[in-house]
Amino acid sequence: MKKSALQQARAAYKPQLPIVLTGGVKIVEGEPTQSADNQADIQKLFPNTYGLPEIRFEKVPATESAEPINVGVILSGGQAPGGHNVISGLFDGIKSINRNSRLYGFLMGPGGLVDHKYKELTADIIDEYRNTGGFDIIGSGRTKLETKEQFDKGLEILRELDIKALVIIGGDDSNTNAAILAEYYKAIGAGVQVIGVPKTIDGDLKNSVIETSFGFDTATKVYSEVIGNIQRDCNSAKKYWHFIKLMGRSASHIALECALQCQPNVCIISEEVEAKNMTLDQVVDEIAEAVVARANDGNNYGVVLIPEGLIEFIPAVKALIAELNDLLAAKAEEFAAVDPEKQREWVIAHLSEANAKTYESLPAGVARQLTLDRDPHGNVQVSLIETEKLLSEMVGKRLEQLAAEGKYKGKYSTMHHFFGYEGRCADPSNFDANYCYALGFTAACLIAAGKTGYMSSLRNLTLAPVNWIAGGIPITMMMNMERRHGEMKPVIRKALVELDGEPFLKFAKHRDEWKRDTCYTYPGPIQYFGPAEVSDQPSLTLVYEQKRRKY
Amino acid sequence: MKKSALQQARAAYKPQLPIVLTGGVKIVEGEPTQSADNQADIQKLFPNTYGLPEIRFEKVPATESAEPINVGVILSGGQAPGGHNVISGLFDGIKSINRNSRLYGFLMGPGGLVDHKYKELTADIIDEYRNTGGFDIIGSGRTKLETKEQFDKGLEILRELDIKALVIIGGDDSNTNAAILAEYYKAIGAGVQVIGVPKTIDGDLKNSVIETSFGFDTATKVYSEVIGNIQRDCNSAKKYWHFIKLMGRSASHIALECALQCQPNVCIISEEVEAKNMTLDQVVDEIAEAVVARANDGNNYGVVLIPEGLIEFIPAVKALIAELNDLLAAKAEEFAAVDPEKQREWVIAHLSEANAKTYESLPAGVARQLTLDRDPHGNVQVSLIETEKLLSEMVGKRLEQLAAEGKYKGKYSTMHHFFGYEGRCADPSNFDANYCYALGFTAACLIAAGKTGYMSSLRNLTLAPVNWIAGGIPITMMMNMERRHGEMKPVIRKALVELDGEPFLKFAKHRDEWKRDTCYTYPGPIQYFGPAEVSDQPSLTLVYEQKRRKY
Repeated sequence: MKKSALQQARAAYKPQLPIVLTGGVKIVEGEPTQSADNQADIQKLFPNTYGLPEIRFEKVPATESAEPINVGVILSGGQAPGGHNVISGLFDGIKSINRNSRLYGFLMGPGGLVDHKYKELTADIIDEYRNTGGFDIIGSGRTKLETKEQFDKGLEILRELDIKALVIIGGDDSNTNAAILAEYYKAIGAGVQVIGVPKTIDGDLKNSVIETSFGFDTATKVYSEVIGNIQRDCNSAKKYWHFIKLMGRSASHIALECALQCQPNVCIISEEVEAKNMTLDQVVDEIAEAVVARANDGNNYGVVLIPEGLIEFIPAVKALIAELNDLLAAKAEEFAAVDPEKQREWVIAHLSEANAKTYESLPAGVARQLTLDRDPHGNVQVSLIETEKLLSEMVGKRLEQLAAEGKYKGKYSTMHHFFGYEGRCADPSNFDANYCYALGFTAACLIAAGKTGYMSSLRNLTLAPVNWIAGGIPITMMMNMERRHGEMKPVIRKALVELDGEPFLKFAKHRDEWKRDTCYTYPGPIQYFGPAEVSDQPSLTLVYEQKRRKY
Repeated sequence: MKKSALQQARAAYKPQLPIVLTGGVKIVEGEPTQSADNQADIQKLFPNTYGLPEIRFEKVPATESAEPINVGVILSGGQAPGGHNVISGLFDGIKSINRNSRLYGFLMGPGGLVDHKYKELTADIIDEYRNTGGFDIIGSGRTKLETKEQFDKGLEILRELDIKALVIIGGDDSNTNAAILAEYYKAIGAGVQVIGVPKTIDGDLKNSVIETSFGFDTATKVYSEVIGNIQRDCNSAKKYWHFIKLMGRSASHIALECALQCQPNVCIISEEVEAKNMTLDQVVDEIAEAVVARANDGNNYGVVLIPEGLIEFIPAVKALIAELNDLLAAKAEEFAAVDPEKQREWVIAHLSEANAKTYESLPAGVARQLTLDRDPHGNVQVSLIETEKLLSEMVGKRLEQLAAEGKYKGKYSTMHHFFGYEGRCADPSNFDANYCYALGFTAACLIAAGKTGYMSSLRNLTLAPVNWIAGGIPITMMMNMERRHGEMKPVIRKALVELDGEPFLKFAKHRDEWKRDTCYTYPGPIQYFGPAEVSDQPSLTLVYEQKRRKY
């Protein structure tokens, strides 16, 4: 691998560890914990790993070396900046326990455990990947570890390699599965601990005890960089409305953080759209209103941020999609026989009145996409819908009406962007580099302490890393029961944007001003060197959320 | 304007000036120059500004202050990182001549001169914009300064403000117009000098005496950052072919620089496609070949870079578009009356055999776009064609054929990206910050020396700024005659990618290896602080080109 100049310089970076992890550690156990909800159900499903106490490490004089331990590690799901640092922190952690400890990486995600595909991660390999983005050290994948067969198959290779602990780096689903695996291995006395690490750029894996998931900080900084650049272009050329869609299906944390960083004219927050039971037309009106207000000031340009998952949060569209899925499943043959020119008519005739109305309001291209592009299960492929174009087109139509009524006289030209892959594998910011390294190192300490079913945890994250509190949180503590594919399942509750939370309130307080005026901020690219106020700032979401936390 | 932490830190950055500009300057004149071609024609069109000598400044002890001078400045055309630094260098330059000198900015491009829209740029304003991206200090625009009426109208406001010199910051067209304006004002004895500054992210305004245009360095670094991030994602997930289109209609310098920085699997260079007279199918085959080769190694993923202007460089497509424009202009009414379902048939029946064949080979959506989306002059809107999707779709079709023939067994999933607006207004890299500031300062020196019809010039750019050679190049020296809208016009010759130039040869030497293997490099974001080998590197295009230069 030919390394860029930055990679070479970053290879020398030493992540800062919390002071508590720089010597020996003593475990301080808190009170037994409860799951987030449905306590009886969760306890029944996790008899061996329910109710464990929160754990906090305290520094003690370094002790004599313990026995070497072999550890396996898995990267699960979508990429997030800092994964390589979790692994290097874990490596350094188990080596500090005993230099003969070994680390094995399972390849291309959880599937590597089941299929017995792995490689030993030696110091040479680890050193190639310190402080770099990507998951390419061992690859990632989306196989779900769910069945007893998978667990048993995995145990074969764990036993073969004498692996006593498995670290699963993943999002809410992967950590849910880590908890199930921990419970299972404990129940059968397999002698394998399982530790989770909170990863996702989406920012929806967090709660009262996990302050943030890794990768969110870096990814939102990359998006904010390019959004800021587009805003500056927008404000220089003064002729386009830029519609920018941002990755994040389930929650709008990314869009909200970028809005706080960049101060665009409009940012739609899916959770608010759902809470207010807004229709697609109302979302369109909100944007059109900004376009008209700015046009009245002579400003025929602006920037709109849209979360990727928006369309699924609009109750009317959600209802339409649900009915369409049922309808086209039930009458697949009849629909297939309809003359393509008549399909639209057919769909409208077969939908309930409310959903037919929503369907009719959609631009023709999107409506067609809803009936044609279906996944192998016959469902609408929502992720293929180009929401940024859908909205800009509908806003254009609305402006035509307003112009006809004499209420709008501006010019309206649009540009579209979608950012996601641009940020998932960026070199981790100093924050994520430090956070991830500490998460990996903490996982090693949890392993040394014989824990299982825990998630690696660092808290006090807006302070300098030396002050961070390190420990472990029982994964069951974050769980509740939710319906998935028709069945009640134990899952980690996804953290959506809270409409009474500080980050949203901050946004809500300023957005009217940002809408009409041009208040763009230009964060620029991530800096790894230079003044700390530039290079070491955590995300604003975290900063605002921390205001309410107490330790 | 709320400033980001980076903006605040960058406000303190002092661009490095060439040593020759740090005291008084003496002018050293070279030999009289000739235009690039069509010398007799150009001389006839520029009797007062043809044949001027190249100018080089030499440092002399600082002299007593000269008379104050009022200067106007215009930002013309598309945004490029560093424009604000040209203006701040110009400001500091004229203030160093005499602190009572004044700088006026004409608003929203050359139109501001004609419409008498301007503002005085005072120290307070200038300080707000030092080392920032964007053209928002005075805005930019695309009005062309071409007619005597415009020149005379401009002269009114120049006289009113007692402006003795006008600095036009623009690309090849704007600098051509600067030369015409310089000639006109000289011919009528208006007493207004005109100086050009070479700007364009496209990199196509350069020649034997202008080493690079400003903005290219920063823009390509931003694109390389996000391309590198996508490559790392690609190499972690191992499941997509990413087709990435890059801004740059006329030349492929941007794509080539990004390829040198990132080492993607495929990069199409328009100039090569044209030189080899390649068909669209051949371009598709070249990409498909890479997909097949990598699939044979088990790698069903990759990255393809595509210059925005590609489609216009494919001789067969160019011929098709030309015939379509003529055909649809001549038979507009007849075509409009054709049943939409029969339009394709109609078009094929009316085209020459060769062009009909090209038309038939295009995916239906693109073919439809060629006949439907036409600009106000009835011409095909080439810029609307999503070349990245066109190619990925055609590659998919080709792979289906190969699979049917048993020659391909891989999986093929695609993602698409287009980068342009993300880079045009980025905060200038240290290189562009220094280069632009020096360009502006040099313009001030050319003004003080009484010169007109010159372009501000810095050379030796791969050395540290202190060693740069500062001076001026007569704009007529870069001109030749070219047909524009049916008429022969004097224009600055666009610099296309030279297939025997070092940058392309370097790419050509390695591309087979990059194609089959995964040789991705990850440049990361622009760094403004830290080790010089990270933060102060010029573009590779410039580095390789300089190898052949001698001073």
